[in-house]
Amino acid sequence: MFKKILIANRGEITIRVIRACKELGVPTVAVYSEADRAALHVRAADEAYCIGPAPSRDSYLRGDRILEVAQAAGADAIHPGYGFLSENAAFAEACAAAGITFIGPNPRAIRVMGNKTTSRVAVHEMGVPLVPGMRENLQSEAEAVAWARKIGYPIMMKAAAGGGGKGLRMILREEDLLPAYRTAKSESLAAFGDDAVYMERYIENPRHIEIQVLGDRHGNIIYCPERECSIQRRHQKVIEEAPSPIVDAEMRRAMGEAAVRAARAVDYDSAGTVEFIVSGKSREFFFLEMNTRLQVEHPITEMITGIDLCKEMIRSAAGYVLPFRQEDVPCHGHALECRIYAEDPDNRFLPTPGRIIGLRVPGGPWVRDESGMYEGLDVPIHYDPMLSKLVVWGSTRERMVTRMLRALSEYKVKGIKTTIPFHARVLRNPKFLEGDIDTNFIDREFQPQDEARVKPHEDVALVAAAIKAYRRDKAKGLAAPASGGGGDASLWKQSGRVKRDPGF
Amino acid sequence: MFKKILIANRGEITIRVIRACKELGVPTVAVYSEADRAALHVRAADEAYCIGPAPSRDSYLRGDRILEVAQAAGADAIHPGYGFLSENAAFAEACAAAGITFIGPNPRAIRVMGNKTTSRVAVHEMGVPLVPGMRENLQSEAEAVAWARKIGYPIMMKAAAGGGGKGLRMILREEDLLPAYRTAKSESLAAFGDDAVYMERYIENPRHIEIQVLGDRHGNIIYCPERECSIQRRHQKVIEEAPSPIVDAEMRRAMGEAAVRAARAVDYDSAGTVEFIVSGKSREFFFLEMNTRLQVEHPITEMITGIDLCKEMIRSAAGYVLPFRQEDVPCHGHALECRIYAEDPDNRFLPTPGRIIGLRVPGGPWVRDESGMYEGLDVPIHYDPMLSKLVVWGSTRERMVTRMLRALSEYKVKGIKTTIPFHARVLRNPKFLEGDIDTNFIDREFQPQDEARVKPHEDVALVAAAIKAYRRDKAKGLAAPASGGGGDASLWKQSGRVKRDPGF
Repeated sequence: MFKKILIANRGEITIRVIRACKELGVPTVAVYSEADRAALHVRAADEAYCIGPAPSRDSYLRGDRILEVAQAAGADAIHPGYGFLSENAAFAEACAAAGITFIGPNPRAIRVMGNKTTSRVAVHEMGVPLVPGMRENLQSEAEAVAWARKIGYPIMMKAAAGGGGKGLRMILREEDLLPAYRTAKSESLAAFGDDAVYMERYIENPRHIEIQVLGDRHGNIIYCPERECSIQRRHQKVIEEAPSPIVDAEMRRAMGEAAVRAARAVDYDSAGTVEFIVSGKSREFFFLEMNTRLQVEHPITEMITGIDLCKEMIRSAAGYVLPFRQEDVPCHGHALECRIYAEDPDNRFLPTPGRIIGLRVPGGPWVRDESGMYEGLDVPIHYDPMLSKLVVWGSTRERMVTRMLRALSEYKVKGIKTTIPFHARVLRNPKFLEGDIDTNFIDREFQPQDEARVKPHEDVALVAAAIKAYRRDKAKGLAAPASGGGGDASLWKQSGRVKRDPGF
Repeated sequence: MFKKILIANRGEITIRVIRACKELGVPTVAVYSEADRAALHVRAADEAYCIGPAPSRDSYLRGDRILEVAQAAGADAIHPGYGFLSENAAFAEACAAAGITFIGPNPRAIRVMGNKTTSRVAVHEMGVPLVPGMRENLQSEAEAVAWARKIGYPIMMKAAAGGGGKGLRMILREEDLLPAYRTAKSESLAAFGDDAVYMERYIENPRHIEIQVLGDRHGNIIYCPERECSIQRRHQKVIEEAPSPIVDAEMRRAMGEAAVRAARAVDYDSAGTVEFIVSGKSREFFFLEMNTRLQVEHPITEMITGIDLCKEMIRSAAGYVLPFRQEDVPCHGHALECRIYAEDPDNRFLPTPGRIIGLRVPGGPWVRDESGMYEGLDVPIHYDPMLSKLVVWGSTRERMVTRMLRALSEYKVKGIKTTIPFHARVLRNPKFLEGDIDTNFIDREFQPQDEARVKPHEDVALVAAAIKAYRRDKAKGLAAPASGGGGDASLWKQSGRVKRDPGF
């Protein structure tokens, strides 16, 4: 095991890594910017060094200074967390050149997966499905017909110079193809001075579903049950859950095996995530990208598998073999994460930097708070405004949701506004409760006038009514199939002889 | 489900029940003594009523007042927590007479199990093993020989009027029986003026191992994997773990089935615990008593099974059928609980009432704190000094221990002394780490001079060395067998191809 680990990050993820190191018996080194002198991660580490002024390019992105600190402090490994230098292949190489282990994948994996074109080529060769579409522009009407048959309907016609919806045409049937081609061309020419267009499959009810993989330095790679991350605001994940409400055991295996093939394409040897776009309608899945780091939302996978991803990532970097096989990875119950931001949900989610003058953190059974907060902390304006991740586990999806609502009701941050009340509103949305979500869910569903006050104990009845509606629809074949679950899922499936209470 | 639940208790267990109620959508009513006006349980409930002065007999034991409050507040059920009225059959009957559901077993079960004699008779009829021994005094040497053969060696000869070790004789072989009989008689006569003696099996390396059972109002009873509660101080549990280091799958089933038979003897229909004394040497187990309530240490069972015992107990009282079968109860990984007391471990564990002026609660992965503390709380002198229960889960016993040491190092209570440092000392004890414990462990092992300071990251090496020694002894057949585990235990068993790091 390493002698000492430097964590080249800030906030909750640094605390998470420090805790893993403590449990592994490894002393830790923190680095911090001038704005973070009083940050919790500085206090939690065994040693801490200032590496520059507040802007990230002058501190958390200064790989050279971070390496100097590592060498001066005697650290033999660096954990990059997420963001900052975590997917910087040059930094990973500089670590290796300095004789320090980069706790992440090999630099080639970072480089190949960091580029849209090279990553697609690499995974495509391994038989991982990409969104069907053209890589060139259309040249003729005949070509349009041929390509459309190859791609399959529904199709999206897009302007090569496009943006803002101009030149976009959705095509459901072949008879609509050529008229759409002509109008898209002329619209594109008028808008951009360029009539080049191309076609891609249109993904209906697009959902973001991703697979956590875990590799070691000995060629072993396993996958974990999926995470559904469709609840996004401006393409940023806000709420994640595992497993997905629309993935059954068969689909889980297919996605997992595709993810492992994608990882094998770059000899992946650490914790990483393969992201897919999934049609909520057809449940087909297509590769989006691979994130070559520990992801923000990793705790929900930990909660349903019992695998300490952060610890295994460190062990793997130290050369240990993965301590379990694919068939040993369970899928127990349901986990949910709410990202708590220093933002005002009632005022266009503007950041709310300032001092936290009071703090009550939720607790009790199956509630986990990953946080960099403390009473008296000044939340700086310079960084991502995420304050903490609230994670809960439940034996059923309903219990998971009511537990999160309970935990949110316990969470009190005084002094600054946070997104805590917004999460409760999303969780009470009947479509969320029915699992009927896609990546446009928040933009489409969330209206400020929905924000009527709900008393805590009324949540359960609300959840129950939505679940009831969902089950009725499901019985009629209208709703998406429920998660099948692997492993011991049978424990959590209530049998017919159970008298249900209103909430469960 | 109930309309409103009153919790007739205080402290952490009341918070635990309130959280379960919130997740079930049921409003809650707290009661409190004058000394508890500012207690956390009062703030956490939807309503709260003062029921009298500080002494328990004038408040928390005043069943009549509590029933009045329940009726006035419109509560249709009462959860008694543990202690106070939780095992009071008359109170359970008074609830029923008032038309209020007592969230616990039927009154007959409380009454039969609350008496040493009636409980033994009841479970013995169901074939549950009792410690072999005489219920009468010895009358002759011939009778001594006959009884000794029936009981089996080793045997403890005890003075009927005994106490303080006088008249006690341990007998390993038949040839020592009659000499021991004679000296015990004469010693007993000299000490107590009464030469009556009797015999019982002597339990070597006695361990306290207990089985959680869960019954419903429809005749279903299941058992959970055992809890080992041998770490006791003055017969009070201090640290509990699940599963036990000496119980394998076969023994687990045998103990579980015996516990269910004991529960069936009284038509048990709620959460309860059957306690056994187990010989650390022979691994034979014998019935001690049944606790007809939710137990302090219930969270460790929740952590390894995923079953919300508190919620199921409430559901069961409301008439719901248990939502799982025996074969659905898993045994995943390992859980540990440390009871944090307001006591000074460096001064004979004297209570340390006073004001909590600073508080940092541990968090992060697989750490659960069940607490009634907050910053500013005045800890009263009137009640049991338990402040909180710190619970962790780990995929292996070693990870569980290093995680608890990490969590203990994060726990800061300013203003009063607590037993937090004492727990770390116990956890670093090599015999504890080897699972080589019995109910005399703390009295025998714990010496104030052992209290040398250990730096947090040194814990792991210490744990590793002890585990190594344990495994070496085990390979030689010297140590107790490791837990076999049921369910998905295979996940947590590291295979031979794993390169072990020093800590794991």
